[in-house]
Amino acid sequence: MTDSTAETGRYALGLDYGTQSVRAIVVDVATGTEIGTGVFEYPSGKNGILVDPDRPHLARQNPADYLEGLEKSTARALAEAETHDAFSREQVIGIGVDTTGSTPMPVDKEGTPLALHDAFSDELSAHVWLWKDHTGHAEAEEITETARKLRPEYLAKCGGTYSSEWYWSKILHCLRTAPQTYEAAHTWIEHIDWIPAVLTGTDHPDTLKRSVCAAGHKAMYNEEWGGYPDAEFLAELDERLVELRETLPEETYDASEAAGTLTEEWSERLGLPTGIPVAVGAFDAHLGAVGAGIETNTLVKIIGTSTCDLMITPIERDLADIPGLCGIVPGSVMPEHYGLEAGQSAVGDIFDWFVRVVKPDGMSHDELTEGAKELAPGESGLLGLDWHNGNRTVLVDQRLTGMLMGMTLHTTPAEIYRALVESTAFGARVIMERYEEYGVEVERIVNCGGISDKNPMVMQIYADVLGRPLRISSSSQTPALGAAISGTVVAGGHPDFDAAIDAMTSTKDVVFEPDPAHRKIYDRLYDLYRRVHDAFGVKGTEDDLYDVMKTLLDIRDKVRS
Amino acid sequence: MTDSTAETGRYALGLDYGTQSVRAIVVDVATGTEIGTGVFEYPSGKNGILVDPDRPHLARQNPADYLEGLEKSTARALAEAETHDAFSREQVIGIGVDTTGSTPMPVDKEGTPLALHDAFSDELSAHVWLWKDHTGHAEAEEITETARKLRPEYLAKCGGTYSSEWYWSKILHCLRTAPQTYEAAHTWIEHIDWIPAVLTGTDHPDTLKRSVCAAGHKAMYNEEWGGYPDAEFLAELDERLVELRETLPEETYDASEAAGTLTEEWSERLGLPTGIPVAVGAFDAHLGAVGAGIETNTLVKIIGTSTCDLMITPIERDLADIPGLCGIVPGSVMPEHYGLEAGQSAVGDIFDWFVRVVKPDGMSHDELTEGAKELAPGESGLLGLDWHNGNRTVLVDQRLTGMLMGMTLHTTPAEIYRALVESTAFGARVIMERYEEYGVEVERIVNCGGISDKNPMVMQIYADVLGRPLRISSSSQTPALGAAISGTVVAGGHPDFDAAIDAMTSTKDVVFEPDPAHRKIYDRLYDLYRRVHDAFGVKGTEDDLYDVMKTLLDIRDKVRS
Repeated sequence: MTDSTAETGRYALGLDYGTQSVRAIVVDVATGTEIGTGVFEYPSGKNGILVDPDRPHLARQNPADYLEGLEKSTARALAEAETHDAFSREQVIGIGVDTTGSTPMPVDKEGTPLALHDAFSDELSAHVWLWKDHTGHAEAEEITETARKLRPEYLAKCGGTYSSEWYWSKILHCLRTAPQTYEAAHTWIEHIDWIPAVLTGTDHPDTLKRSVCAAGHKAMYNEEWGGYPDAEFLAELDERLVELRETLPEETYDASEAAGTLTEEWSERLGLPTGIPVAVGAFDAHLGAVGAGIETNTLVKIIGTSTCDLMITPIERDLADIPGLCGIVPGSVMPEHYGLEAGQSAVGDIFDWFVRVVKPDGMSHDELTEGAKELAPGESGLLGLDWHNGNRTVLVDQRLTGMLMGMTLHTTPAEIYRALVESTAFGARVIMERYEEYGVEVERIVNCGGISDKNPMVMQIYADVLGRPLRISSSSQTPALGAAISGTVVAGGHPDFDAAIDAMTSTKDVVFEPDPAHRKIYDRLYDLYRRVHDAFGVKGTEDDLYDVMKTLLDIRDKVRS
Repeated sequence: MTDSTAETGRYALGLDYGTQSVRAIVVDVATGTEIGTGVFEYPSGKNGILVDPDRPHLARQNPADYLEGLEKSTARALAEAETHDAFSREQVIGIGVDTTGSTPMPVDKEGTPLALHDAFSDELSAHVWLWKDHTGHAEAEEITETARKLRPEYLAKCGGTYSSEWYWSKILHCLRTAPQTYEAAHTWIEHIDWIPAVLTGTDHPDTLKRSVCAAGHKAMYNEEWGGYPDAEFLAELDERLVELRETLPEETYDASEAAGTLTEEWSERLGLPTGIPVAVGAFDAHLGAVGAGIETNTLVKIIGTSTCDLMITPIERDLADIPGLCGIVPGSVMPEHYGLEAGQSAVGDIFDWFVRVVKPDGMSHDELTEGAKELAPGESGLLGLDWHNGNRTVLVDQRLTGMLMGMTLHTTPAEIYRALVESTAFGARVIMERYEEYGVEVERIVNCGGISDKNPMVMQIYADVLGRPLRISSSSQTPALGAAISGTVVAGGHPDFDAAIDAMTSTKDVVFEPDPAHRKIYDRLYDLYRRVHDAFGVKGTEDDLYDVMKTLLDIRDKVRS
């Protein structure tokens, strides 16, 4: 990104649908400079999420919020862009979209979400099933077990365990618990499929260009085995899924493909030129990696409440299945490359838990950081496991919990805060090492997301623990920028993703370099972390502690029920 | 204890030297009723303790404080007793004493502490080495190693490890670091030996009747091997210790023995009859067990910042060495019985750490207890190891640290507080089971100490975890009461300890009964506790985690130094 004097008169619109709001940005195609931003917070439910006090794992959204947000966020971004003399709406050449996921919704034969029909407007099962809806927990286990028996290859691409957050778990749960909704639906599409379909006026859901990113990472879609899971497998789960499968396409698309062109109706509603291309969408993390400047051998870490650790590697190479990764999907980040997804279930959430729930001495993140900064690696004698929300990579196990050891009668809140940060850094190192163990070398690390921008201490600890220089993305809105880049590519604003990334992304001048002395101590601590990690997290000998955390949760769940 | 209408006109004085103050009580011999109490806080140093900012493990006391406290606390107790019409000073028939320990001091040939000489008045090494002085850490390891090679039987009676808190560690450290003090001393006596010697006018330290409780638990004294450690062993540590050994007696005494009778001088200073007997002393915990009503098959738990878990068993029985116990000493609690001592290094200190150092949401013990009380066993999913100050019994390992596991993003301070309490209850159960594994059956449990009086929730959790009814001592000053009982016994106020305990001690009406449903859950949690306890605390296979906490401390110590 350079300053706006380099503007060349072509712009792209990036739409980034997050958990609580949608953000639109207008970006200069030549430089990646953001010249307009608009944010719209979903009005429905609690912070945009429909909840049910009796079902704590339920999290739904109202698709009407997405449409209202589409108009209003775009209007605000364009209004701000218009304060730049060089800009006019006619210069917008393409649109790209990212959303959360897996966030599927039931739709009718016209592709309209059931929730938008009066008959279903009060029915939560007919709304959008937000990524963090975990009501399909039992169904996820059933899918995992069934795949383990019949189609182990399905699991190999998604870390060995099918998640309750994903497409089939949600649909199967709906089928079991709200059959009237299931029966009323023609098919289920992802939020990411719906927005381009709306903008481009796709007239039937069976013909819309579904995102390979969503299908591949969340719905066990893979070209190798003929697309979506086969009918025999689905029938084993429930006969009625076979009919649903018939509505699913054989082919899916990456974000270098246009879903279509902007309809007249939406051209009017947005105030943008009719006929400009709209890219097939991808998830926020994946287009976030694009906005952070991903390339082969670059690890993009999106560090916020949790992390996403993304890499790509050329599709022509012979890539083994990497155990514990959440997904290995050709084209999910960039065309012609495997998109490789790993992540930590909680990072910022753990620090937030300490500050907001434990509330040690009423200290803020800044105050705790001040104290933690004064400490040397190893000085506290503490060591933690960063499993307060389970472990996504490499253990893929929700039934793991946090741990802290080494406490004395003098252990201070700042020491604990630093140990929590360090534990997440060790968790990050496990992921990086897993990539490298399977031949995906990490030559460069680019960080983005809230924490990378806000807390230099965290970044320095990560650099020391990982033993690598850490770079920070210049953009603080990499998913929206990545979406705009896909909009640019489908409009021919750059010949391909590589060229667009090259022109439109950059990293900040500051680089966090590992301190060799700190590195040495962290190597020893990491060795201890790995041993405790494996003792509690890996099924080993009969003497291991693998069942301890799970038994604690079993007891807890029984007592609570 | 019954009310004071039962007074029969005979009283005993109990003197209880604690860490920061001395307490005198006047007790009715017939009933155990306390009719007068006087407390004197040591004026020297910080809260009565001489410290050195450069040596954090140093904790000394000024023997002059003990003498001033002797007079003033007694005067206050007698003044209060005299408000009872039935009481007169002439009716005091005997005196008993307890102190902390091992709390030794160097004395000259007249038995006068070196610290009371002008030449040594500013010399910390010449003062009293308080029980919690840990400056002799390296010497303790040396003594343990030497005993392991030459005299393993010495270690078998004191849990397998000689502590830095004990007699020889302190003396050897003085010899090594302050040889001028060591050379100036004729011998070293315990605080508990000095007070009766002062009151009875013992004229030479070599002839004073030393306490078997101090000698046996802290100085590796045992009749079986001829008393104190032999010259050959001591010479291996340092030749100069051999000379010191020559000042030590062959025989030591339990608290049913009179050290002598009150001198005219101290009769005048205290305002008590000349010639009344003064009992040989014992440590606060041991006489505390007497004041709580110890008998064979009764476990007395003194629960405060740490715990002492005492039992007695008849001396004629064939008792195996019990691994992990801090001490097995004939006569240390009562004549004709082995005194068996176990304990937890930190209990109330752990709860205090959470409230005063972590300060969760600024909540007090009472507020956290309120929240913790609402929780059911197992409901939090948390499990802790209560090793914030190491583990005394059964692991005898200072280099262990606290642990908490099972945290999620919703774990609350009250849940953590309860988990800390539960972890200490599990630690208590390990001790109880160790006694029973070696044939010392626990048929009755009497609790005393601050926590047993103050926190019913803690006591209920202990009852549920131990699976036994828990009784609470009626007296909240059991060490002072136990001291008064020993003063009674040596004066013939009761024929023996059993009779005196029977008449003078009792438990409160409230009994904490275990809840069978809670017990069942705690049995499962305890099973997990034991496995994690053994994984981190017991040297086992090559795959164990025994070295993890120690390595963390090694790294910490290296970084800090």
